Amino acid sequence: MAILAVGSVAYDSVTTPHGSVDEVLGGSASYFGVAAGFFSPVSLVACVGDDFRGEDRFFLESRNIDLKGLEVIEGGETFRWTGDYRNDMNAAETLDTQLNVFADFNPVIPASYRGYEYVFLGNIDPLLQRKVLEQVESPRLVVCDTMNFWIEGSFESLLETLKFVDVLIINDAETRQLAREENLIRAVRKILKWGPSVLVVKRGEYGAAMFTAKGGNDLDVFAAPAFPQEEILDPTGAGDSFAGGFVGYLAGTNCVDEESMRQAVIFGSVVASFNIEKFSLERLRELTFTEIRLRFSEYHKMMHFEGFEDVQD
Amino acid sequence: MAILAVGSVAYDSVTTPHGSVDEVLGGSASYFGVAAGFFSPVSLVACVGDDFRGEDRFFLESRNIDLKGLEVIEGGETFRWTGDYRNDMNAAETLDTQLNVFADFNPVIPASYRGYEYVFLGNIDPLLQRKVLEQVESPRLVVCDTMNFWIEGSFESLLETLKFVDVLIINDAETRQLAREENLIRAVRKILKWGPSVLVVKRGEYGAAMFTAKGGNDLDVFAAPAFPQEEILDPTGAGDSFAGGFVGYLAGTNCVDEESMRQAVIFGSVVASFNIEKFSLERLRELTFTEIRLRFSEYHKMMHFEGFEDVQD
Repeated sequence: MAILAVGSVAYDSVTTPHGSVDEVLGGSASYFGVAAGFFSPVSLVACVGDDFRGEDRFFLESRNIDLKGLEVIEGGETFRWTGDYRNDMNAAETLDTQLNVFADFNPVIPASYRGYEYVFLGNIDPLLQRKVLEQVESPRLVVCDTMNFWIEGSFESLLETLKFVDVLIINDAETRQLAREENLIRAVRKILKWGPSVLVVKRGEYGAAMFTAKGGNDLDVFAAPAFPQEEILDPTGAGDSFAGGFVGYLAGTNCVDEESMRQAVIFGSVVASFNIEKFSLERLRELTFTEIRLRFSEYHKMMHFEGFEDVQD
Repeated sequence: MAILAVGSVAYDSVTTPHGSVDEVLGGSASYFGVAAGFFSPVSLVACVGDDFRGEDRFFLESRNIDLKGLEVIEGGETFRWTGDYRNDMNAAETLDTQLNVFADFNPVIPASYRGYEYVFLGNIDPLLQRKVLEQVESPRLVVCDTMNFWIEGSFESLLETLKFVDVLIINDAETRQLAREENLIRAVRKILKWGPSVLVVKRGEYGAAMFTAKGGNDLDVFAAPAFPQEEILDPTGAGDSFAGGFVGYLAGTNCVDEESMRQAVIFGSVVASFNIEKFSLERLRELTFTEIRLRFSEYHKMMHFEGFEDVQD
């Protein structure tokens, strides 16, 4: 099944301890789309200025991504972000943000997208996320990302959006901040009463955990460590490519049961682990599906241990 | 098989955000011994003062622990440690350390222990760790703990000890510090050239990873997240009870193959997860083996996902 994805398309300038790049293709929707495109067609809704390069449009279209919903603002400039990871590879220091055309982004969903069953709401104003949902008919799975900026500044609006969300993907600090609760498990229980039935908590170099509401106070927990890596060149887009692998796999198989969700967490982790091996989208450009499947298999081996038969697993 | 364990027996005074305890039984050997005792007999080598309470001796002896090697120094005082976790549940602030009789600890291994095949070297001076090893005949498995204090102050001596160690259990900061290498995987590769064939890296609330040298530059990696918990009352002894569950399981089954080592990491994580649910050794006092086996099984469920048959796992 195809995925409707809304988010940002940007030009990034990034410095890490291993080098720097200038004005390269980035933004949450770009990373998400390229990652998800390995598994399923993606239709992007985003906006850019007329400085958006033809080669970048061509690249995205070559990766299973439909750009009918990519609005080009005449005379406008594409969103720019400048970040520096030299002090902390786990969190960029933002040196400059120029929203440009993204400041007035008002997502309009093309009529042909309105019946889509898989919807990814990238990290944008919760009000705009709701506007997207109002334009789709009856999605099977709504997956949502957000960040500290919206949790602090648009808390009530975010809660309103969460009512319509099936899967929320955020990091552990955001989970604690959103729930206003230091203990992660108690924070998760609280958030799962607000709308989402699944909460995926990203933990950077420590992996990801998925919590599924099972009625009452019951939780199903799945936890996966990150894939151990010797070379991390640029963490930009790790979270978005995780979400892309996650939603891409679910939409590709059109199956959203617990077992598929667990596999989806692993595929998300796999694609994210490749993404950070090179700058920008360079590694995903050359990545093959065979490499993804092989690393999925290595993941399986890394997490496997024998249970005992005398206790019911 | 029985385990020979050397380490500290102490009286701890601990404050956490959830309360405090005063002069309670603690020390690495106490936590290790009680944890390992669920799986295998343990013979402790440590020293205390003549203020060591009869009830504490009775408790340890009731838990599968032989105290023939517990030296009581007449007129001496037992090691005291005072710690505070109110600022950071992941790392205690040490308010006071009184080594007392432990300052002159010189481990003497009773003759009846010298043929032991499983040896645990708790976190003491690397020189004393070697003295212990000189007194045992031909151990099958030597497991070693250490800390930043010895890495900084006794680096060369620690390297000498590591030559005789099979499994090193340390946390991720200590791994980086010991190898003088920021990237965890590169740090692991470096340390695995110094003696140990297995390195278990504890990651606190993020679980544990085990790296096994496979010849050349090959590594076998096993990674397990921590068991998610709602109530953490007192982290004291988490690392030592992890080591106790780990070594206890291996000695209890007398099997040290890769598959048993993986299960041992889980048993270590399980016992540690119980230990932090109450202050001091309170939770381990009341813990049953059935509870351990049930949580092992929950762990298995938490980490399980289906692989694919078309790619060889």
